[in-house]
Amino acid sequence: MPRSQNLPVAPSDIDAAAQVIAPYAVRTPLLSLPVLDERAGAKVFIKPELLQRTGSFKFRGAFNKLSSIPAAARGNGVVAFSSGNHAQGVAASAQILKMRATIVMPGDAPLSKRERTRGYGAEVVLYDRDRENRETIAREIAGKRGAIIVPPYDDAVVIAGQGTVGREIAEDLSALGVTPDVVVAPASGGGLIAGIAIAVKARFPNTAVIVAEPQDYDDHARSLRAGRREAHQARSRTICDALMAEMPGEITFAINSRLLAQGVTASDEEVRQAMAFAFRELKLVVEPGGAVGLAALLAGRIDARGKNVVIVLSGGNVDADLFARLIAA
Amino acid sequence: MPRSQNLPVAPSDIDAAAQVIAPYAVRTPLLSLPVLDERAGAKVFIKPELLQRTGSFKFRGAFNKLSSIPAAARGNGVVAFSSGNHAQGVAASAQILKMRATIVMPGDAPLSKRERTRGYGAEVVLYDRDRENRETIAREIAGKRGAIIVPPYDDAVVIAGQGTVGREIAEDLSALGVTPDVVVAPASGGGLIAGIAIAVKARFPNTAVIVAEPQDYDDHARSLRAGRREAHQARSRTICDALMAEMPGEITFAINSRLLAQGVTASDEEVRQAMAFAFRELKLVVEPGGAVGLAALLAGRIDARGKNVVIVLSGGNVDADLFARLIAA
Repeated sequence: MPRSQNLPVAPSDIDAAAQVIAPYAVRTPLLSLPVLDERAGAKVFIKPELLQRTGSFKFRGAFNKLSSIPAAARGNGVVAFSSGNHAQGVAASAQILKMRATIVMPGDAPLSKRERTRGYGAEVVLYDRDRENRETIAREIAGKRGAIIVPPYDDAVVIAGQGTVGREIAEDLSALGVTPDVVVAPASGGGLIAGIAIAVKARFPNTAVIVAEPQDYDDHARSLRAGRREAHQARSRTICDALMAEMPGEITFAINSRLLAQGVTASDEEVRQAMAFAFRELKLVVEPGGAVGLAALLAGRIDARGKNVVIVLSGGNVDADLFARLIAA
Repeated sequence: MPRSQNLPVAPSDIDAAAQVIAPYAVRTPLLSLPVLDERAGAKVFIKPELLQRTGSFKFRGAFNKLSSIPAAARGNGVVAFSSGNHAQGVAASAQILKMRATIVMPGDAPLSKRERTRGYGAEVVLYDRDRENRETIAREIAGKRGAIIVPPYDDAVVIAGQGTVGREIAEDLSALGVTPDVVVAPASGGGLIAGIAIAVKARFPNTAVIVAEPQDYDDHARSLRAGRREAHQARSRTICDALMAEMPGEITFAINSRLLAQGVTASDEEVRQAMAFAFRELKLVVEPGGAVGLAALLAGRIDARGKNVVIVLSGGNVDADLFARLIAA
């Protein structure tokens, strides 16, 4: 029996999501870059989700989710809580579908993420990351307005949307006649990596799907080792603002605990170096959270030598002043 | 009679070049980015040659040229003069083909371009852009060593290599069932735009191929208007360090005067804004000279509304400190 049977999301759900998002999402290419192959001693394929509409993969899951809301229920709009990329995904999807969107964001989210969310016509409500609970605030707003909450990751329809990233990887590699040995993607709540794992392993059952996290925000790696959901123990911030969820989701962990091979981490300094490498050598703008898989590869923390390796760069929404600081030699 | 008949480079030369470079060059994708479509009011396709090996299209022409040198003549190596991107293209090609390379570069070329050229194993000889003639220096070195000069643009084999950019654009658009109305690419000596014009117009004879230049370095636009080669009249530098050739080449102008629709220009400030837009919205690192076509589009200087428009971003080799300064709001 394939290990993916009886999971909360099926490959066919991802096929359906691919149809739903096709008119609006960017089908991002799979990039081959000789300089990275040479550096890693591997055949590396980059999946640049920074080229996705809104600058991150989050548009895929958000648009799939909003599209699944029946027309009769769309009138009161949607509410989402997000540190920035899911916010933009929901806001842009709502704008396309002509729905009202309210986004609850931490006050310390990057300025560009807040401004871009407003730019898609959403109302932004800020909260204090240390003192308030964003889910509570979102539920209050949703209750008052009769709006529907769009969860950032722990939702089968959202996960199916993110899984289209893995479906495209599998399609493009099949066309090239390449079997991936390793696929690496970042995780906060784990929706992206869960969707990717389902889609990739449906086509390539022996591929090792690896989750990448910031060093101290290693709740997925911990949970995989423990066999149950565990919170990270981080006491300070990470530059990976998009990857600060406290622990894996229930639905995402039900998938990831069955399908993932392992977790790897990268320090803030390694993430900075990966962003500088991406600027200098790949000519791509990657945000800190989007670069954590590349950082783990460049730091030698993935067994890649001589293998076919896919690295998902999940987003590129980073403020110009922070980017300038991080790429300085 | 098709207008491209009896030109110094034939579409079949570009087909042959495509075969030669295929094992080493990146077949860059054609990117669709909704945010750019909305901004330009057009269907825009980006050809990101910044993803090319060495960070610019120059690898294509250089590798095609070096591969055309008979084995018996390779022993004494090659010499090239270049402000940076051709330098890297020649150096990387020589490294792959195990030839010696000497590159004559201006002392004020961006540091990263000089370092990267050395990184490919080439010897770099610096000269004073205001007081010395790089062609004279290159010829002296070549004479002493019996080395072969690799011209940056005014050479049919180099132009055929650059033409593979246009061939890929034509192939990808044909596969999508799209006919381009306009194709825009930057020019210094004019090799890239000449190669693109031959390849694109072989498949799409009615497409307008437009050359983009820095405001005061408009020698192609002047020459197209005059019907003969004219030098630009610039008295100060431009931030487009890659686009400072004094006048069109003889061979390139023989092609461009027959095939190009017009020339457009962009100011340094418009180029800066285009680079910042590419950083913020496209998540691509474009160097000043590579962004001049995008700058002209964003400045409204190309009749694009409602049309299918291809913009070639020709390179992404820019120092981190300059990039940081230019993307600051």
